[in-house]
Amino acid sequence: MATWRQLSNRYSRTRWANELSYGDAAGYLPLRRSIADYLRFSQRIACEPAQVIIFASTQQALDLCARLLLDPGDGVLMEDPGYPGAARIFAAAGAKVVSVPVDSQGLCTEPPLPVQPDMRLAYVTAAHQTPLGGSLPLERRLALLSWAEACGATVIEDDYDGEFRFHGQPMPALKSLDAGQRVIYMGSFSKMLFPSLRLAYMVVPGWLAEPCRAAISLTMRHAPLHQQAVLSEFIAGGHMARHVHRMRLLYGERAQHFQQECETRFDGLLSPIPVSTGLDATVLLPAHASDAQVAAALHRGGIETRPLSFYSVQHKAPPGLVMGFSAFDETAMRQGMDGIEKVLEGLALKP
Amino acid sequence: MATWRQLSNRYSRTRWANELSYGDAAGYLPLRRSIADYLRFSQRIACEPAQVIIFASTQQALDLCARLLLDPGDGVLMEDPGYPGAARIFAAAGAKVVSVPVDSQGLCTEPPLPVQPDMRLAYVTAAHQTPLGGSLPLERRLALLSWAEACGATVIEDDYDGEFRFHGQPMPALKSLDAGQRVIYMGSFSKMLFPSLRLAYMVVPGWLAEPCRAAISLTMRHAPLHQQAVLSEFIAGGHMARHVHRMRLLYGERAQHFQQECETRFDGLLSPIPVSTGLDATVLLPAHASDAQVAAALHRGGIETRPLSFYSVQHKAPPGLVMGFSAFDETAMRQGMDGIEKVLEGLALKP
Repeated sequence: MATWRQLSNRYSRTRWANELSYGDAAGYLPLRRSIADYLRFSQRIACEPAQVIIFASTQQALDLCARLLLDPGDGVLMEDPGYPGAARIFAAAGAKVVSVPVDSQGLCTEPPLPVQPDMRLAYVTAAHQTPLGGSLPLERRLALLSWAEACGATVIEDDYDGEFRFHGQPMPALKSLDAGQRVIYMGSFSKMLFPSLRLAYMVVPGWLAEPCRAAISLTMRHAPLHQQAVLSEFIAGGHMARHVHRMRLLYGERAQHFQQECETRFDGLLSPIPVSTGLDATVLLPAHASDAQVAAALHRGGIETRPLSFYSVQHKAPPGLVMGFSAFDETAMRQGMDGIEKVLEGLALKP
Repeated sequence: MATWRQLSNRYSRTRWANELSYGDAAGYLPLRRSIADYLRFSQRIACEPAQVIIFASTQQALDLCARLLLDPGDGVLMEDPGYPGAARIFAAAGAKVVSVPVDSQGLCTEPPLPVQPDMRLAYVTAAHQTPLGGSLPLERRLALLSWAEACGATVIEDDYDGEFRFHGQPMPALKSLDAGQRVIYMGSFSKMLFPSLRLAYMVVPGWLAEPCRAAISLTMRHAPLHQQAVLSEFIAGGHMARHVHRMRLLYGERAQHFQQECETRFDGLLSPIPVSTGLDATVLLPAHASDAQVAAALHRGGIETRPLSFYSVQHKAPPGLVMGFSAFDETAMRQGMDGIEKVLEGLALKP
């Protein structure tokens, strides 16, 4: 935060006076360069700054994709359970959402994905599946790309927190395998830095760059320059890589601590799915439990979770809860776990 | 700028650490309060903070209105010549744009506006018509509101630069006459402050506040908090009112200077429409001239203008140019005028 503050103050003193007017609708060019350089190194994605488009949020990027790529009735392939914020955007565009089941490795590509001529889009969280947590294996990634090629569809790879991978070799991004120019890679700074910043980006295939710029120019103009400029220097100065490295260690410790607490405390009532990536963990409840009821009881006890049923459309997820662990140090974690224990005791969840 | 910088640095030092997370989709509450207070005083608009919705830009606000209020085939009443950025948004929503002619007082309400059941929206620049510069008289404002009542339509009042009124009593905003809850008032800080800030707002009728919040939450989440917080303090501390007062005097002098230069230099070739408001002036060319050709020649000479024909859809505007005057001090204005003279001499515009 001190570094960010310094960069922000320096921008105000030096370049701000020359950057008061309108900017490029696709985003501040130095930021787009910084992101392209960063992704080359961190995700092995080879892209030009012209392919990097800046948004206020992933949500806005998804909305623009839906408006540019979908007509009412077009098919969109979605993970189920999956991210409801994306499903709602596609539904609002009048698209037909085709649900594909998910297992512990992410989107299931067996039985084969439905090749239909009206399929226009797929949305996947390949690095860290929302909400079950899997990382899509290489053969499934290739199957998804073949499906896109066969349908003439585009794939959105929403990498909302893939930077925070705690162990194992990270899989190359789907975008890095995108020989056919069919993948849109999305990233956000809400989880890498902080949500009130409101900056996110897409890396688009070359053919989509100009349509994106035109649509943003019409529907928003562009994101604020000051924040874009500070972020650009934060990345270019190496602060982002250092921050992510530090946070990866910290969040990794917290993930482990979360898992230990779950295992030692709840007598099998909460079974955490091992956390390899990100800021949230998924814990499974006994098979007969209603996760919506448990989440409501926890909410009344001051504890915010999301039931897995919230993420399901057609394919029922097992009862479970998504819980954030990354914001809590040891003391706060212990207090939270005490609170959860108290609520669960009152629920008589044991069979 | 020094004041803004101070407020921004103070925010970074004090409140930022507590406002890193997500905020209200409708906007930062202190900013919405500041705007409501400001409008009560400056535009005699009585509104609650709950009716003030924060956007990145007027363009984004227009887009959201079109998505919430229009179905394909719905009618939208537009000034012609008028603001193409709005017309394009409505066309993108599949609306049918109904052009109404404009005279020196703005939107013509005689012959009476077309009362049709499929009219859903009107878009007007009542304080300062884009591009002809008129300010809509009271009887026309009332006629427009009656039309909206008769059709069940909503009126968007885009007050993009009405704060900069140089003489005469400002007309009360259309929104201040809105007994029927049919007017959306839009304002932007791009012209009051600076465009790279990317903040604008709408004041909506009560019935539209929650749908707006839900739609923004889905399609963007919200605008960045830092800029919203600084702007809020800038307004609440009285800096905005002082800034607008100072700029109104300065821009008024520049408008007068622009007009004098036009009158003394061009031997009747450029007839400025008297400037009462805003940052741009409209000058008329001889009746036989092609304003697009003149604008293209000026562009080649390094001078940016917009031909009036750019703003016309169905009702032809007289040939003319929209020219910004507010950014130029006496020396820069003289140099610009020298440049224009040189280009016009080469064009043989005289009959």
